[in-house]
Amino acid sequence: MKVSVVKIGGNIIDNVEALDTFIQQFAQLEGLKVLVHGGGKSASALMKQMGLEPQMINGRRITDAETLKVVTMMYGGLINKNIVAGLQAQHCNALGLTGADANIIEAHKRPVKEIDFGFVGDVDKVNIAPLKAFFEAGLVPVFCALTHDNQGQLLNTNADTIASQIAVGLSEAYEVSLKYCFEKTGVLMDINDESSLIAHIHQGNYSGLKADGVIADGMIPKLDNAFDAIGEGVAEVQIGKAENLLQKEFIGTSITA
Amino acid sequence: MKVSVVKIGGNIIDNVEALDTFIQQFAQLEGLKVLVHGGGKSASALMKQMGLEPQMINGRRITDAETLKVVTMMYGGLINKNIVAGLQAQHCNALGLTGADANIIEAHKRPVKEIDFGFVGDVDKVNIAPLKAFFEAGLVPVFCALTHDNQGQLLNTNADTIASQIAVGLSEAYEVSLKYCFEKTGVLMDINDESSLIAHIHQGNYSGLKADGVIADGMIPKLDNAFDAIGEGVAEVQIGKAENLLQKEFIGTSITA
Repeated sequence: MKVSVVKIGGNIIDNVEALDTFIQQFAQLEGLKVLVHGGGKSASALMKQMGLEPQMINGRRITDAETLKVVTMMYGGLINKNIVAGLQAQHCNALGLTGADANIIEAHKRPVKEIDFGFVGDVDKVNIAPLKAFFEAGLVPVFCALTHDNQGQLLNTNADTIASQIAVGLSEAYEVSLKYCFEKTGVLMDINDESSLIAHIHQGNYSGLKADGVIADGMIPKLDNAFDAIGEGVAEVQIGKAENLLQKEFIGTSITA
Repeated sequence: MKVSVVKIGGNIIDNVEALDTFIQQFAQLEGLKVLVHGGGKSASALMKQMGLEPQMINGRRITDAETLKVVTMMYGGLINKNIVAGLQAQHCNALGLTGADANIIEAHKRPVKEIDFGFVGDVDKVNIAPLKAFFEAGLVPVFCALTHDNQGQLLNTNADTIASQIAVGLSEAYEVSLKYCFEKTGVLMDINDESSLIAHIHQGNYSGLKADGVIADGMIPKLDNAFDAIGEGVAEVQIGKAENLLQKEFIGTSITA
């Protein structure tokens, strides 16, 4: 059986209209499905309103105890539950989750090396038994970017990683399509030309695209991550705009073995 | 089959040690179980930190749009997910929920009469099919005091009411014991004497206790609510301290038909 794991990031979360459109389209997506959402700029905005200063090192967020409270409120509470309520209004029987719920995502606090990232989780294990039970009950899991360490500690965790780990876990039992929604049409030959879409990347053309400098910078870890997921059993990874990835007529970049 | 529906309020939520003790005891409670928690003083404290003024009329909270955001963050996010993580650490496979999740609790916004309570929900319906599926999957539902209107709107809802409505819903399929945990040993003959516990209240002695003024003030709506639950199929309602209601040797007030 097929499962779609769809990940949306800040460009949708931060835009009320884009999120509303996404919710309508995701509700209509056929078959078994899982949604994973990031948090956008909301956590930093709330911190400022609370008189707290977001801690960043080299452009990366440090999750101290106060920041963890804020992201737990914002990702696990406000954003997640409003997405759930929005999906319910579209007759999509959503169930909002962190990785602590039903012990689905076990993680450990990232060890301190050069940087102490604080309460940030690296994923150890995804337990798919509860996800199977949810699918059988007709439910649609909606994950925010939080996990736990099984000792009572919630952990802030990268949403891209959560999506790929859930996709890998589910691939034990399902044919999984992992869909990363971002702001561009897909991987582009020319980053400034939306019409220069590369429709299909596979091991056969990936090295060449990297050697030619077509795939560079931030796109390399994204694609390496995609190939890792495929190497661990995910059938397909798609990268593109939400409105295109959720349509029957697929537009975007498809990554396969 | 038996189900315990346990409700805890602010006196436990606001006290780190009391909550920790409760979590350990609840995790050990045998049989199927559901936890419902209130929010305590946390929402008002966060509002003040955010520079917002809690709105009260006649001592009752008015849930305007900003307040709803705060309670969604605090009840549905911070409190609920920390309880879930705490229970997971005690090997209790908790699943945090609002009434919007899996569409378990449908409500409508309270109509405006003398007071506009804002985004407050009155419960219409509890759908127990997902709760049955969660029990079958070995999961322990943990509800915060939020519902939804099925049109995308989350609603702040009284936690006592959520507990009794879930208990009534489950009584269609289970023998339900509803346990209200509060700060006293139970219903007392003398409110200042913890040793004057009334161990059993039923229709046969309730009128007399009211006529004698033993049961008065805020205890009357609590007990009327308990008898309503029993009238709608709940096997038993218990009122008392958390540490007593969760022990095998029950100490508290038991209310039956």
